[in-house]
Amino acid sequence: MSFFIGVSLKTIGIVTSGGDAPGMNAAIRAVTRIASYRGFKVLGFERGWEGLISNFVRPLTPRSVSGIIQLGGTILHTTRCPRMETPEGMEKAVDCLASNGVDGLVVIGGDGSFRAALALSERTDTLIVGVPATIDNDVAGTDETIGFDTAVNTAVQEIDKIRDTAISHERIFIVEVMGRKRGFLAAMVGLTVGAEIILVPEVPFKAEKVFNTIKDNAAKGKRSAIIVAAEGIGDTKKLALDIEKNTGLETRLSILGYAQRGGSPTARSRYLAGELGNKAVEIISEENGGQVACLQNGVITSIDLKTTCSMEKPLDLRLLKLADILAT
Amino acid sequence: MSFFIGVSLKTIGIVTSGGDAPGMNAAIRAVTRIASYRGFKVLGFERGWEGLISNFVRPLTPRSVSGIIQLGGTILHTTRCPRMETPEGMEKAVDCLASNGVDGLVVIGGDGSFRAALALSERTDTLIVGVPATIDNDVAGTDETIGFDTAVNTAVQEIDKIRDTAISHERIFIVEVMGRKRGFLAAMVGLTVGAEIILVPEVPFKAEKVFNTIKDNAAKGKRSAIIVAAEGIGDTKKLALDIEKNTGLETRLSILGYAQRGGSPTARSRYLAGELGNKAVEIISEENGGQVACLQNGVITSIDLKTTCSMEKPLDLRLLKLADILAT
Amino acid sequence: MSFFIGVSLKTIGIVTSGGDAPGMNAAIRAVTRIASYRGFKVLGFERGWEGLISNFVRPLTPRSVSGIIQLGGTILHTTRCPRMETPEGMEKAVDCLASNGVDGLVVIGGDGSFRAALALSERTDTLIVGVPATIDNDVAGTDETIGFDTAVNTAVQEIDKIRDTAISHERIFIVEVMGRKRGFLAAMVGLTVGAEIILVPEVPFKAEKVFNTIKDNAAKGKRSAIIVAAEGIGDTKKLALDIEKNTGLETRLSILGYAQRGGSPTARSRYLAGELGNKAVEIISEENGGQVACLQNGVITSIDLKTTCSMEKPLDLRLLKLADILAT
Amino acid sequence: MSFFIGVSLKTIGIVTSGGDAPGMNAAIRAVTRIASYRGFKVLGFERGWEGLISNFVRPLTPRSVSGIIQLGGTILHTTRCPRMETPEGMEKAVDCLASNGVDGLVVIGGDGSFRAALALSERTDTLIVGVPATIDNDVAGTDETIGFDTAVNTAVQEIDKIRDTAISHERIFIVEVMGRKRGFLAAMVGLTVGAEIILVPEVPFKAEKVFNTIKDNAAKGKRSAIIVAAEGIGDTKKLALDIEKNTGLETRLSILGYAQRGGSPTARSRYLAGELGNKAVEIISEENGGQVACLQNGVITSIDLKTTCSMEKPLDLRLLKLADILAT
Repeated sequence: MSFFIGVSLKTIGIVTSGGDAPGMNAAIRAVTRIASYRGFKVLGFERGWEGLISNFVRPLTPRSVSGIIQLGGTILHTTRCPRMETPEGMEKAVDCLASNGVDGLVVIGGDGSFRAALALSERTDTLIVGVPATIDNDVAGTDETIGFDTAVNTAVQEIDKIRDTAISHERIFIVEVMGRKRGFLAAMVGLTVGAEIILVPEVPFKAEKVFNTIKDNAAKGKRSAIIVAAEGIGDTKKLALDIEKNTGLETRLSILGYAQRGGSPTARSRYLAGELGNKAVEIISEENGGQVACLQNGVITSIDLKTTCSMEKPLDLRLLKLADILAT
Repeated sequence: MSFFIGVSLKTIGIVTSGGDAPGMNAAIRAVTRIASYRGFKVLGFERGWEGLISNFVRPLTPRSVSGIIQLGGTILHTTRCPRMETPEGMEKAVDCLASNGVDGLVVIGGDGSFRAALALSERTDTLIVGVPATIDNDVAGTDETIGFDTAVNTAVQEIDKIRDTAISHERIFIVEVMGRKRGFLAAMVGLTVGAEIILVPEVPFKAEKVFNTIKDNAAKGKRSAIIVAAEGIGDTKKLALDIEKNTGLETRLSILGYAQRGGSPTARSRYLAGELGNKAVEIISEENGGQVACLQNGVITSIDLKTTCSMEKPLDLRLLKLADILAT
Repeated sequence: MSFFIGVSLKTIGIVTSGGDAPGMNAAIRAVTRIASYRGFKVLGFERGWEGLISNFVRPLTPRSVSGIIQLGGTILHTTRCPRMETPEGMEKAVDCLASNGVDGLVVIGGDGSFRAALALSERTDTLIVGVPATIDNDVAGTDETIGFDTAVNTAVQEIDKIRDTAISHERIFIVEVMGRKRGFLAAMVGLTVGAEIILVPEVPFKAEKVFNTIKDNAAKGKRSAIIVAAEGIGDTKKLALDIEKNTGLETRLSILGYAQRGGSPTARSRYLAGELGNKAVEIISEENGGQVACLQNGVITSIDLKTTCSMEKPLDLRLLKLADILAT
Repeated sequence: MSFFIGVSLKTIGIVTSGGDAPGMNAAIRAVTRIASYRGFKVLGFERGWEGLISNFVRPLTPRSVSGIIQLGGTILHTTRCPRMETPEGMEKAVDCLASNGVDGLVVIGGDGSFRAALALSERTDTLIVGVPATIDNDVAGTDETIGFDTAVNTAVQEIDKIRDTAISHERIFIVEVMGRKRGFLAAMVGLTVGAEIILVPEVPFKAEKVFNTIKDNAAKGKRSAIIVAAEGIGDTKKLALDIEKNTGLETRLSILGYAQRGGSPTARSRYLAGELGNKAVEIISEENGGQVACLQNGVITSIDLKTTCSMEKPLDLRLLKLADILAT
């Protein structure tokens, strides 16, 4: 890594987009300070893509991002922005980048944000670089996204508490974690809380198998269980009722909600924010665009934005097998 | 307080009953060690009243309650036990106390447990003393119950995280906390997170007022809000939809689940467990029964079990007024 | 409690002084919002008494104290200010209050701050009211100070972690908590972590007794122990060495440092901040001064600033006796 | 990874040795359950190497390691054991393995433990495999050790609290973290709390540079700073005094103590425990010994115990440079 001072480029913009993730502020701080150090002027666009469409913009300086490394959320705010999917919205964003003289734009967000970023990159000269930040960890090309580790730990701490009650009452608990389409969060949470059963969208759901595992455990004298389920696996409320009916054991459902998106980022989420933010500025300094800063096999590197958007990140099913044996 | 050694009585039993609460283990530890110190033999009944009905019993010693002060849940387990409401169940419990030679029984639980304890006390010579432990804080006669402070802090920490997302997305969040009939938890949580609106069962719900408060705030530029609602106020899912329809602002619902019941007890919940557990043994040592150890205006004292069961604890509505002004 | 709007007075000032305590920000928020609601203009003096001496002052509004209820520290900053003890410093503070038209001043701090406040109150027409906020809980006249509950919980969480190591290594651990002159923090922390020994400045220290307790425990097979010691009890480093020499057991010292002063306030510290801040404004609204808002036997009330400053708050030694039995 | 059932080997022993680390229990659980699943009998040796020397041994089963994944410390206890460095001690350990019929021994610990393990492996037929677990992260050959992530997060949470006080009082804080010889912990903690200065044993300490950085910051109006220092850099107490003398700014020292070793392991420490524990059993199943399970560039693999013991793990100084720019 070199920290040389960029000269040919002048202004870097930052936008946080899509669902918020813990560590987005640490990433804003990293991009702003690294960019300033390299001689860039930095602009923050507010409220996600809405900020580019409506020109909600403000300067960012090393001082203005002080004291935010430990804060959840994003000081730039974020929205889901359907207008960005319209030709008019896209055009306005292109004009906004031009009128603000933005040479490079760092997009901090998840796969939805990156698809919009890709579309934008095909219509503007501004170099677009992505920094993957989402609790879902579902961005192809990076082993981990900013915020994932925090969300996992938040869920683990919640479930450690729920297990107190599960054991005291000898109950079955279904704990639904975020993940509409993907099971990265559920798999890692399930493995690290020692869940008896983990249900993810990637594996076809078989109710019979769930009932049998619970009944087998009960036969061995284990009358409480934690089932970690991604929200995308289907109707968990119905599942709770079905389990009670089929096993005769009291079953409760707990849906871990939006707290999974918030909270002070863990050290690892902050670390990734620092590294990936630094990498993003480096890419722009080298006058490259259409890239995503990422972590691959422990190394900070980059891949094509186009590649990221066209690939599906595979869930390591081996983890589920390991979790299964560890919970015996 | 005197710590003299009891002589006339011999055996104290302990049962934890109803919903579990953080600090129940600290209370078990306190009763066991104080009772041992005073010369009693101690027996633990397992699985709530079920333990008395089915004679699930084991000796407790100062060593066997070692290392539990910081644990959530209850090592004696607990159940909701409908059989205790039948004459047969009650009779078996009476017999169980007699056959185990239990001179005094400490019942650690909430108001439902105390009603069963009262019924039991009228049928047995065993001295029955209650130790109020429930996250709901709805036991009349005590200013605070074991577990309440922990549940409040758990909810506050969750909502502090949710606020990150609320502000970042400029959304309205309804956070539903436990409390089917009473709003003690919702009121204290709402006050201490700085909730814009607090909804409790004790105050008739007016949707119009909620919409207006949100619209007034939005007009002043405050586009995110936290609404803390006790589960007993009605359909919070419908409320979220109604708010969106009436205010045009994105609204989300987060139901804080069973984690509120678990987790390591706060210092205050442990402190109360120590004091109330000690008081319970003192009452039995003085050969009194039909009492509840309690905290009144900062003083550890006791009241009649019958009085507790016949009163409804009032919610201090002044707290809601104070919260309202503090959230302006 | 009445929330009428004050009319005869116009401006309330706020200063945070002495060591910071978690909940000071919640108190600033409470005083500012309650005062605004009652029709006062609010001024914040920065850097403790230094702000009055050097006229570091800024307006506070309900909006400017938004989002601070959950933050540790104090947005007004604080210092220890020897100049306030000089006639020149005091005169400047008096002039500052006059030139800013401050009708009532709320002093958020501990006993040192209150002594300066008393001296100031005797030289100015400005009504001076104290809000007790210190982790030491050593303010006479109030059962609890803002920040105490947070500091206790911070220490308890630390010691719960240290106990992991103590048990794993079968070691004796001395944990030194804050408290140069008083043992409120040590006593409550020791009781609620289940410390085997608690050492406070209020009880003459006897090394022999410590050695004997440890040796007795070891004889019973209990080879690890937690000793919670207030910093004021003497040289804990020497004590660790002496214990090793006298008992033959590995002994370690851990000094819990400044983290005890920081961190997000607990619900209880926030609650007290709301109540005591509200009370302070009420006192000023009623045109009273020279008072301290306080909590007595569960009731929010007030006492004379002079009384507070002339009394020493007693430590309830009964707590130590209770802790002793509970740790058997 | 294959989960075939081992047949040729019969008994696996487990020992935790050296300083304890969060996640050791998760590793004990993983080794026990994976080994049981593969058909091994499992024995736990207690109190580190002392357990092999004195034959402190007990059977471990999938049930007996239930409910420990979230606990700090080690249920097998650990000691520093000088006797293991004597020929007599070593001989007794060899005999103990033979008399208990231990075919494979999993040593959970740090580099000191691995040196003893290497010496042992040269004297016994028992296959010896290491699982790196130490908060110091100083085991060569693995990118990360079990417990490191937890210790980093514990320190980060502490320092986030200390920063409240640092800012409120406008003070310089030196925070000393563990690391007698190596700066892995200090570097990662410093980077992720946004420390203004990081001091590690690997970089020669220059007091002048520290003073100048602080004075430069003060000139820019930044009057508080966090200095994260590994304990191995020298006398931090003297440094605090020197900074005060040279910069005129109030400086405080906070030594983060043994809490860094304890506490519930983070998800990542638990995950690593699961993977490395699994790998260790796999190695033994394949009848290999003299290996260490490790993480290299995101992949779970193994290296020679001899290699680990002969290499020094380098600290990535680039991290310090990055931290430096990010703290500007």
